[in-house]
Amino acid sequence: MNKGRLETFSDGVFAIAITLLVLTIAQPTNYDHLAHQLGHRLPALAAYAVSFLVIGIMWLNHHTIFSHLRLVDRGMFYWNLLLLMTIVFIPYPTEVFGEALSRGQGATTAAVFYSVTMTVNACLWAGLWLYASVGRRLLGESLPESERTISTVLFVAGTAVYALSIAIALASPYACLGFHAALALYYAFDPISRRVARSRGG
Amino acid sequence: MNKGRLETFSDGVFAIAITLLVLTIAQPTNYDHLAHQLGHRLPALAAYAVSFLVIGIMWLNHHTIFSHLRLVDRGMFYWNLLLLMTIVFIPYPTEVFGEALSRGQGATTAAVFYSVTMTVNACLWAGLWLYASVGRRLLGESLPESERTISTVLFVAGTAVYALSIAIALASPYACLGFHAALALYYAFDPISRRVARSRGG
Amino acid sequence: MNKGRLETFSDGVFAIAITLLVLTIAQPTNYDHLAHQLGHRLPALAAYAVSFLVIGIMWLNHHTIFSHLRLVDRGMFYWNLLLLMTIVFIPYPTEVFGEALSRGQGATTAAVFYSVTMTVNACLWAGLWLYASVGRRLLGESLPESERTISTVLFVAGTAVYALSIAIALASPYACLGFHAALALYYAFDPISRRVARSRGG
Amino acid sequence: MNKGRLETFSDGVFAIAITLLVLTIAQPTNYDHLAHQLGHRLPALAAYAVSFLVIGIMWLNHHTIFSHLRLVDRGMFYWNLLLLMTIVFIPYPTEVFGEALSRGQGATTAAVFYSVTMTVNACLWAGLWLYASVGRRLLGESLPESERTISTVLFVAGTAVYALSIAIALASPYACLGFHAALALYYAFDPISRRVARSRGG
Repeated sequence: MNKGRLETFSDGVFAIAITLLVLTIAQPTNYDHLAHQLGHRLPALAAYAVSFLVIGIMWLNHHTIFSHLRLVDRGMFYWNLLLLMTIVFIPYPTEVFGEALSRGQGATTAAVFYSVTMTVNACLWAGLWLYASVGRRLLGESLPESERTISTVLFVAGTAVYALSIAIALASPYACLGFHAALALYYAFDPISRRVARSRGG
Repeated sequence: MNKGRLETFSDGVFAIAITLLVLTIAQPTNYDHLAHQLGHRLPALAAYAVSFLVIGIMWLNHHTIFSHLRLVDRGMFYWNLLLLMTIVFIPYPTEVFGEALSRGQGATTAAVFYSVTMTVNACLWAGLWLYASVGRRLLGESLPESERTISTVLFVAGTAVYALSIAIALASPYACLGFHAALALYYAFDPISRRVARSRGG
Repeated sequence: MNKGRLETFSDGVFAIAITLLVLTIAQPTNYDHLAHQLGHRLPALAAYAVSFLVIGIMWLNHHTIFSHLRLVDRGMFYWNLLLLMTIVFIPYPTEVFGEALSRGQGATTAAVFYSVTMTVNACLWAGLWLYASVGRRLLGESLPESERTISTVLFVAGTAVYALSIAIALASPYACLGFHAALALYYAFDPISRRVARSRGG
Repeated sequence: MNKGRLETFSDGVFAIAITLLVLTIAQPTNYDHLAHQLGHRLPALAAYAVSFLVIGIMWLNHHTIFSHLRLVDRGMFYWNLLLLMTIVFIPYPTEVFGEALSRGQGATTAAVFYSVTMTVNACLWAGLWLYASVGRRLLGESLPESERTISTVLFVAGTAVYALSIAIALASPYACLGFHAALALYYAFDPISRRVARSRGG
């Protein structure tokens, strides 16, 4: 299994999934009141922006993990394939969520659906990481043992945080969307993860 | 003919075809009963997952074959183009299949259509392999003669197995979908193919 | 201007355009008579197959031309961008053509529209080739002068052949689709172009 | 952060965004009057062509900037991600603009919406450039200090020029589309930017 070709394939899938997000914003149906119709789509635009940031940061995460692998095997290929399956799926709940918020109908259900998708995704990230890192199965020497532990804690904690987003969805769909945006910003600015990234050469 | 650029082009086509699968799941039409509508789309989600695994494993297969080629020629380009034509087509029967199962209408026809597509695809895999391997036309030295024979048997048998899926489609559409999922899992876990892969350096 | 990155960008555009073709085949609307509806879409399937072959062979052509360039400049970038603009557009007339044939309405207009698109595309191929090859502006040493002349004749003649397809469209839409398929096969099997390709190292 | 992998990811996103533009041209609905319907879509075709040129030239711009960076960091990753978010979004206002012009309804609103999108995009280009170039944070030695100043002036002036397009949109939607086309041609032919590009090795 060639690591470079698997990275290129994964990069392609990330790039396409993030670009297909634009198709999740419904076109106007009535051009007589176009400004009103476009304003009505602001929640769909917000869902687009949040999912775009989330997939972009996932790409960065994928890139960081693979930079620490010294090889990939068939098991890693299948974990990666399952992970990509949930990432490729993200435009679907994004469209449902944005449309539900725009219509003001079914928003709680849509928020739960979005959060469940993200939770399944977080579990697959944790699984992929554990597969690669337990016993340092696929890890190279660039990642010190202490930071492997930190990463494992962060990946496992991530599943709990995303599970929490399901509860928030039940309370308020907009709070749920804000929570997912905040998580993306947290990954962008959180000093701890940046410290790890820096020592990782990221 | 540059082998690397043909691989990159093919990887791009695989990555896009696998990502377009998400468009095969119909959006809800009624947001008042969103949970009900999403539940109704579970068969389409299952068809998405099966086709995703199938295309992912085809990518792996393509990768393995090309890793054993010492060169590609115009004939190989055209076999590869025909093969890609059927792979790019897969989202279409996937959408038909998922929609037919969701509606409970035309499911047998849709399952046959899906299985015929997969059978044509299996024939093209066998043709591409025979073109590359008979007389070791394009093969490099990394693949021993004994394993070339095993691979040939597996590719030719694959066409019969996929033809069998057409018969299963006539008996039960859900059994047919399960059969395609089982084939994907078989390729993922089957010890013989993994042994071949290992000796291939995969 | 980095030649490699322009090739990669162009390859990506080719790969996506060829894959988006699958979206040109309209989904069934009535699942009670699914077999009938799928049969009804055979002309759209034929248009899909022809355009797929055409774009695939254009990719091969692009690959061959770029393999003979020693550099690319801004002028080449813009010729290439205009060329890609017509290639990316191909799914649109393909969908119109397939749908018109399926409905049995507007087929002549659709065939003319498809052929005009292909003719504009052929003119851009000729322009790009002339830009790169006149005075050997961008050509490397791998292409002998004699074969440069042959290629120039073939590219210029190509515009006339595609213009002829417009006349055929007026006579019969199905003959027009067959003519485009025959042109693709001609490029695949024609011994002269294969001889040129061989001497080009293709 | 690996500069090459970020370039490849960005190239993929550019290639997909530019290709998805073809989906912005609405299919005919009535095949009895196909020629009339196709003629009716000429404004959408014009919007497609303008956005295609704009994204293509943005790709060239991106390529030029990155060729002068000696490294990329997390801050650059996020600026690039925000930039890509607006580029991926371009097909949406393109479709709205083309459809509004075709229908003759809501064209002013659509032109303003298109121009606002382009203005936000221009601001992100300026931000990304300032982030990379102030204090030569990420710049390598290939770009002389004098040309860094010219580039900074051009990027900042670009935001004002795009803001001007909003005013033009209010006056005339077609003039606005022409203005965006002229800007693309300006970037293609303007001798000053070509001189900079030449000295940049472009």
